Amino acid sequence: MRMRHKPWADDFLKENDHIVVQEPFEHKGKWKDLFKKDQPIHIEIGSGKGQFIAGMASLHPEINFIGIELAKSVIVTAVQKVMDAEVDNVCMVNVDAKDLREMFADNEIDHIYLNFSDPWPKSRHEKRRLTFHTFLEQYEAVLKQDGKVTLKTDNRGLFEYSLVSFSAYGMQLEEVALDLHGLEDPMNVTTEYEEKFAAKGQPIYRCKASFRG
Amino acid sequence: MRMRHKPWADDFLKENDHIVVQEPFEHKGKWKDLFKKDQPIHIEIGSGKGQFIAGMASLHPEINFIGIELAKSVIVTAVQKVMDAEVDNVCMVNVDAKDLREMFADNEIDHIYLNFSDPWPKSRHEKRRLTFHTFLEQYEAVLKQDGKVTLKTDNRGLFEYSLVSFSAYGMQLEEVALDLHGLEDPMNVTTEYEEKFAAKGQPIYRCKASFRG
Repeated sequence: MRMRHKPWADDFLKENDHIVVQEPFEHKGKWKDLFKKDQPIHIEIGSGKGQFIAGMASLHPEINFIGIELAKSVIVTAVQKVMDAEVDNVCMVNVDAKDLREMFADNEIDHIYLNFSDPWPKSRHEKRRLTFHTFLEQYEAVLKQDGKVTLKTDNRGLFEYSLVSFSAYGMQLEEVALDLHGLEDPMNVTTEYEEKFAAKGQPIYRCKASFRG
Repeated sequence: MRMRHKPWADDFLKENDHIVVQEPFEHKGKWKDLFKKDQPIHIEIGSGKGQFIAGMASLHPEINFIGIELAKSVIVTAVQKVMDAEVDNVCMVNVDAKDLREMFADNEIDHIYLNFSDPWPKSRHEKRRLTFHTFLEQYEAVLKQDGKVTLKTDNRGLFEYSLVSFSAYGMQLEEVALDLHGLEDPMNVTTEYEEKFAAKGQPIYRCKASFRG
């Protein structure tokens, strides 16, 4: 991704505080108060330009969404997409999701989406992968008992690694799709990356997993 | 597969009783007595024309192999391949592996290979798939505590199903490979089918799983 410097980004993110949560760590345990309706909360880690989170929010008014994205240069596009979608069930957070437990209380979240996360292919970077066991510990903590993690990626190595990592942690695989676009799932909301890769004919992998009760 | 009638097959299988076990159910709990060396026993369910089992036996003299194949018209080729390989650590069984527990005692087996099994794609045939939970129960019974099941297939649907089925049963995924021939694993012994499909550029999937102790 091209990380173009956008000097106006800071102001833009401050001005749009109806979408961009300014002090996210202060909302730990109280995220439901930020939304109009008290309904399940789904989060996306690494929302990029926001096509997925804006699309999901439109498709699922019965769910509240939180998109987390560290890069200012792309989250501004996500915020714009959320505004264009004219939805009131999504907010965006511009922080590094190093430890979700700092931002969310236990059992506060119903679903976590990891879309096209950085694969960190080198073995020595294993611990940076968002499906490394230290991250799974965080997900287990903030998710409700029957909460789910959905991973979507075009990266074969990351997907193989993640299936084994989920399994080793004791998670249960509820769904595995090895060619998502072969499925033509009408409920699959795509990301910008996904469209690009799928158009090249590369398989998109998806897995939904849960923690055993 | 073309099921050519081979009228001489019965005689051939009887004549080669140094390879083809004539009364397999009578060896339950005593399979190790059939082999020259007392070493781990690996079985393949559905050996077809025997390229895998003959190749594995050559590559792994430290293991005893049992190939199970119902179809007379193909097992004769497997027997010939085993003879050509000049190995003494493999035997073949010409039965329907409906319930492995009739043929093997608890903990008698170290590894089960399922290679390019019939995918039975229709939902109503789910229970015929060799990774349906009733089969997993058999595998768990006959396998040693740390025994493994390795599934190899080109069939995406069967592979997706099997990962979820293994997980639902409580098995642990130890290895997942979504493009086996991209790996260029020098220890991967191929089957006849595998070579044909891989040559067409279709991905070959492999998963190794174990039962939690």
